[in-house]
Parts: sequence; structure tokens; C-alpha cells
Amino acid sequence: MSEKQNIVKPSTLPGFMELLPAEQIRFNRMMDTIRRVYERYGFAPLDTPVIEKSEVLLAKGGGETEKQVYRFMKGDSDLSMRFDLTVPLARYVAQHMGDLTFPFRRYQIGKVYRGERNQKGRFREFYQCDIDVIGREKLSIATDAEIPAIIYNVFTEIGLPPFVIRINNRRLMNGLFAHYGVAGKPEMLRAIDKLEKIGPEKTRKELEEAGIDATAISGVFDFIAIEGTNSEKLAALNDLGIDNEQFREGLKELNTVVTLIRAFGVPEESFAIELKIVRGLDYYTGTVYETLLQDYPEIGSVCSGGRYDNLAEYYTKEKLPGVGISIGLTRLFYQLNEAGILGEENISSLSQALVVPIGDTLETCARVASRLRNAGVVTEVYLEEAKIAKKMNYANKHGIPYVVLIGDEEVADGLLTLKNMADGEQQRLSFEDAAAIIKQ
Amino acid sequence: MSEKQNIVKPSTLPGFMELLPAEQIRFNRMMDTIRRVYERYGFAPLDTPVIEKSEVLLAKGGGETEKQVYRFMKGDSDLSMRFDLTVPLARYVAQHMGDLTFPFRRYQIGKVYRGERNQKGRFREFYQCDIDVIGREKLSIATDAEIPAIIYNVFTEIGLPPFVIRINNRRLMNGLFAHYGVAGKPEMLRAIDKLEKIGPEKTRKELEEAGIDATAISGVFDFIAIEGTNSEKLAALNDLGIDNEQFREGLKELNTVVTLIRAFGVPEESFAIELKIVRGLDYYTGTVYETLLQDYPEIGSVCSGGRYDNLAEYYTKEKLPGVGISIGLTRLFYQLNEAGILGEENISSLSQALVVPIGDTLETCARVASRLRNAGVVTEVYLEEAKIAKKMNYANKHGIPYVVLIGDEEVADGLLTLKNMADGEQQRLSFEDAAAIIKQ
Repeated sequence: MSEKQNIVKPSTLPGFMELLPAEQIRFNRMMDTIRRVYERYGFAPLDTPVIEKSEVLLAKGGGETEKQVYRFMKGDSDLSMRFDLTVPLARYVAQHMGDLTFPFRRYQIGKVYRGERNQKGRFREFYQCDIDVIGREKLSIATDAEIPAIIYNVFTEIGLPPFVIRINNRRLMNGLFAHYGVAGKPEMLRAIDKLEKIGPEKTRKELEEAGIDATAISGVFDFIAIEGTNSEKLAALNDLGIDNEQFREGLKELNTVVTLIRAFGVPEESFAIELKIVRGLDYYTGTVYETLLQDYPEIGSVCSGGRYDNLAEYYTKEKLPGVGISIGLTRLFYQLNEAGILGEENISSLSQALVVPIGDTLETCARVASRLRNAGVVTEVYLEEAKIAKKMNYANKHGIPYVVLIGDEEVADGLLTLKNMADGEQQRLSFEDAAAIIKQ
Repeated sequence: MSEKQNIVKPSTLPGFMELLPAEQIRFNRMMDTIRRVYERYGFAPLDTPVIEKSEVLLAKGGGETEKQVYRFMKGDSDLSMRFDLTVPLARYVAQHMGDLTFPFRRYQIGKVYRGERNQKGRFREFYQCDIDVIGREKLSIATDAEIPAIIYNVFTEIGLPPFVIRINNRRLMNGLFAHYGVAGKPEMLRAIDKLEKIGPEKTRKELEEAGIDATAISGVFDFIAIEGTNSEKLAALNDLGIDNEQFREGLKELNTVVTLIRAFGVPEESFAIELKIVRGLDYYTGTVYETLLQDYPEIGSVCSGGRYDNLAEYYTKEKLPGVGISIGLTRLFYQLNEAGILGEENISSLSQALVVPIGDTLETCARVASRLRNAGVVTEVYLEEAKIAKKMNYANKHGIPYVVLIGDEEVADGLLTLKNMADGEQQRLSFEDAAAIIKQ
């Protein structure tokens, strides 16, 4: 056994979220809701390793992400910790192609790691909650319409304040750029991506300085500024009469997606065609999504994603188009908490009942607790020797709604004393009646 | 965008389990059951970071474990990945002492990392499912009696074949050793720990060679060989009349624990006093547990744990006694699978219904799917263009029990065709009737 030793100050690393029980319970409730909705849409669970071979995980190479990766040697192995759930999905699908049925619908909820610069609200370990549908060679555009219904149900069931799922189509945008002779100019896409952040005037100036033709800029900006309901926007886009194949294809896709989003049950006020969203430069190829809280635009998108042409080009020659979204749960939870959206409730226990012995009745208490648990009631027994006030205080501190008191009298007459901690009322009841009240 | 590139062979690291969807669904079902039971006993969830400061995580230092730790530098930080959930718990309780209410009951289910030698059935990344109850300064012995009830319910609800929870008390054993004048001889404890593996004769020989007195060996071995029911064993232990304080205390604890295990609802055939289990050398100080599958002793203990005097001596001077157990879920799942205990069921989807359009009925299908989901039915829509046979085959391959067929006729008359995939029977039904049948 250890000798007298030095005490190490207990602490966690910056950027690694750790919650107290009451917060953890709320965090888990959000995660459970996300999982429940994902599952209800027929997505199967997946759980890939947190550590992979660097050669595999970093097959794409380059970019900001690679610099942030937690990469290290163990023995002769060059290892990396996953920085998202998309690369492991690509590897998984390519590796197990023959064992999967397509379209392959999977969800994954897990921690990912990025050695980001340390700043408030940025996390180095955080949960991503992803769904993707992967086709083999092809994937119906109808799939793109199901995704917003999932986003809608997740955030409605979590109980978020009003939100709008914004959708656009990259093919439409590429067609527009081609129409104005600025196809293949990454500045254009980059400018639109930043438009909401830096405003139209600054963006226009940047584009002019980059040598983009003023007519093209005006054309694209006028396009982006099209206002109206979803139907009005679609009509306006149609009326533009832009004669470009990509544009027509993109518009047709957007039309189909909007029609089916409605059929999949998303109310009109909860989704909007938003021509200024493009979601990054080089990944998405068709439909793109982001989700804004109407009253908290400063939080930014709480769920984004889109359609891509080829999931796993680094691992297989097979073409695997897909569509997916990701919720960055750790950041979202942090931001909702900061914004005061999660409420003040401070319940640090899941228990619905605390069984409290008065005097020497522990055996009976254990039996009653066992019966309550068998009846599905989340139950604790206060097992320590303590004054009754301390026992009741334990229930109060944890926010446990009912206390079951058992003294010699209760043992003798086979009844329980049930105390409602909210109003302080006490009743002598049979086990069955008490259990029924606790379960409501 | 990427040019023509080299393909990296997709693969995972040895010792890192990754499952196909059907297995993953079964794995998650086990994990959910464990979580559900842990929660029903009033344990609160905890989720600590996977990476911690090496200085903190390895505060104890030394030992086999430290060699196996995944430890690396990131910038100036010396980091380690957690190798169990107990050290993070100790750090957590010491760090957040003022914010917790004691006894503190937490469960944690998460991945831990050990760079073990690569061999079949050993994992470098694996799930541990832990519960612990931590007291401040003291913790009632009654707590030790609740733990076997949790083990019992977990494994019963998972549907494991018959198992026995074996319990012993280290204080009792220490008293026995003192009685025979071999207290403080680690060989004695080590020998008992290995007894079942190497047999009594070899053990006796080893002890004799280590210079342990033959009378002491015989005394301890006779003790360990005490047979009978739990009550008979307790009576026999009492009748030994060993006059040693530790022995008397240990026996009293064991008596209390057995009495309350019964009150907490564990059937007599599911737990047994087993005097030859000690569970390692230097950690546990009172009650110890292990759990054996009766018909699969070769699997070893599927859930172990015990009582310890001081959880967090490396992080605080405060004394924190506790009791806990751990289920090594990844290994357990692997072993149950290998032993054929998990059955042959091969369902790779959670979906209860697949909605299949026949002809141009996608909008109606989307609406029906949305209603089914709102009614709680896990539902997919087959969105790809394909022949009807291929669509039905998708349901078959995934083991989806019901297909909802919607063609022009169904759209016209507002009914659905429900096909039971098990018996092939088809019926024309209203939405409500179909939903009721699917939900059973």
C-alpha cells in the first residue's frame, strides 16, 4: 500500500468539457433525444474506434484539420485520434462494403478531438451527432428532403426556441456562376460563405479587388437577395430563365426537395430556401443545410450538412454519393447554457423516490425499494445513519420529488408514509397506491 | 479539389473492436440495459474526458498499467488517455467535492484505453460500465448489499444464462491470516487469488516453498474449503470461534451484507459466499464481488468489484470510502458472441416498417412515413428508383418486419397495403389499423 504521498491538484485540461451531475443529466437528455429521433428514421447505430492508423485517418492530407489532430506513436504505430465522424464513416463503408446494404443509413454519436486554439466556447474534445445516408453509385434526391424532417424533429423534441432550417443547392449556385462567367472562381463561393458575417458592401469590395467582373457581382448579389416565401422564391428562380444545365438541374432538385420536405411533415415556417448559404468550399455538391435559432442568430448554425458526390474516394474506387448532417452537441449545449435557453432547473439525481428508514427498518426499506424498482420507479434508499433532517435534506438537495418514510409503525401495519417534497404533504398509503402516485 | 489519388487500404488497428450494424444493434441493446438498470438504482450519469493530464491521471504511478497507457505530447502538454474509469472518478470527486452531495452515486459508461499485448479477445479500446457509491469519511455497509442486486438485475435483464454473484470479505480474510500468524504476507493473498486457476496442490507447494508455516496453510485451506449454503457457511464461520477483531468485524459485515442482499431481492441461488475470492492484492478492503456464468466458467468473472477505504488519496486528504463494480462490456460481448450465447438473430436495422412506393407515389409515402414516425413507429421509406423485388429485398436483408406498399390505388382509396414479411400475408388497411398492427 501507498506511503504518505504528495497530493496532485485535481484538474482537467482546458477545452475538455466536464459537467456536474445536474448539467450532465440535461446533456444526456439532449443526446438521448437526438439518438431517439435518428433511430426513429431508421438509422442504424455505428461506433468506430476513437484511434485509427494515421495513414488511414489522414489519407486526404493537408488542411487546417491535420494540424489540429492528436497524433502520436505507440510502439511502432503511428496513431491519430478521430477529428470528425465522416472520415471514419468513409473508411468503414469502404472496408465493409460487401457486408452493407445500400442505401446505408447510419447514425453515430461520439467524441472527436481537435487541438484547437484555446478560447472560450471552443472544445478540444466534443460530441458530434451525425447521420448520413450513403448510396452505391447513386442516391435519390428524395433523400435530401428527409434530412430537414429529422432536424425539425430533433430540435422540436429537444424543446429549442423557434428555428429555421435553411436550404440551398450548390448545383444551382454553380450554374449561376457559369451563367455570369465566374465558374471556377473560388473567391465567389468564399465571398458568399462569408456574406452574412462581413456584410454585402465589404464582400463586394473584396470581390472587385480580386478582379471579379462588376456585372457578375451584381448579378450574383441580386440573385442572393431574392426575397419571399419558399414558393415565391422558387417561382422567382424559375422566372430568371437562366439557360444553363447545371442551374436547371439544381433548380429541379431544389423544387423536388421543397415539395418532399413538406410531405415529410416540416411546417412551412420552419424551413427556408436561403440562397446565400453554401457551407464551405469543396465538400458539398448539391443540397446544403444549416439551422439557425431565430432569436439567437449569434449562436450560428446548430446543425449543418449537405449532399456530397463521393464519400470515400481515398479508400475505394467505388463511387459513394451521400447526404448527411452533424450536430456539434458539446458546443451547442455550451451555447444554449450560456444563452440561458436551457432553463434553471437544477436536479442532480434521476431518482423519483428516496426510501428513508426511521429507526431499525433497513430490511423493510430494502424490500420496498426493490419492489419500487421492479415497478419501474427510479429509487434510492438512504442507507447512512443520520438524523431524519439530514436524510430529508439529501432528497431536497437532489430534487428527488418523493420520499417514502418507513418506521416501526409502517412496518407493523404494512403501509408506507409518502411525502411529496414539492408541497410537503404526507399520506399513509399501501405500496400499490404509493407506487401509483410516484409514477403518476 | 482532389486530383486522381492513391487509394489507402481501409482498415482498423488490431485490438480495436468495430462491429457491423446487426452486431452493433445487439451491443447497444446490452449497453442500454446496463444503463437502464444503473439509472433505476438512482445512479447519476458522469462523463469525464478521455484525455487527461499525465501528471493527474498517473498520480499513483508505477505498475503494469502505466506501461500500457497511451501517453503523448501535444504542444507542451503531457497527455494520457484514461485506462479505467476509477482514476477519473477519484479526480472528479476530489475536484468537485464542494458541489457534490454524499453519498455520491454515479455511473459511467465509456471507452478506456490500454496498449495491451495483441492477442485474441484482448482489446486496446474497450467499454467499461462502472457504478460506484462514494461516502465522505464513512459509508454504510448496507451499501455493499445493494450492489449484488444491481448485478443481478443487469444480467437478468440482458438475458444471460444462469450466473452466480460470489462475495467475500477482505477484513474476514485478514483476520484469518492474523489468526494463523501470516498477516502481512502477500504470498498468502496472492496464492488464494490464483487458487482456482492453478489448483490447491500447486498452491500449497508454492506457499511451502515461500516458507509459509504448514499449519497456517492447512488452516487457511480448510477455511476456504468450507461448503454449504450461504446460511450454513455463515454458521460455520461463526462456529470457528476465531478470536480476532478483524475477523469478527469482517464476519459481522458479511452477515449484514447477506441479510440485506436478500432484502434487496437477489434470489438465494444467484449469490454465494465464496471464501476463495479476494480480487487482487492491494485495492479492496472489505466486501469483494465477482460474477460467474455457471455453464461458462472459462469466461471468468463478468462483473467484479468491491469496497475500498479511500478513493482519492492522490488528490485530496479527505477520506473517501466507496464501493463499486465494473463490467468490461467489450470483452463480455466478444466472449458471449464466441460462446454462442447471444443467439443467431441477424437484424441489421432498427426499422419496424419500410414504406415502399409503387409508381409515382413518393409524396404520399413521405406523408405516411411521417405519420408512422409521429405514432412512434421506427420507419424508413425506400426512396430509390428500383424494381419492386429489389425494394422488398431491402426489407428482407435488414430483417424489417413490415412493408407498407403504396401505389396509385392506395392513394386513390386512402388505404395502405401492409405486408407482414414473416408470413408474407398482405392486407388493405386504414392508416390507424396498419399502425396498430405494426406496433402490436
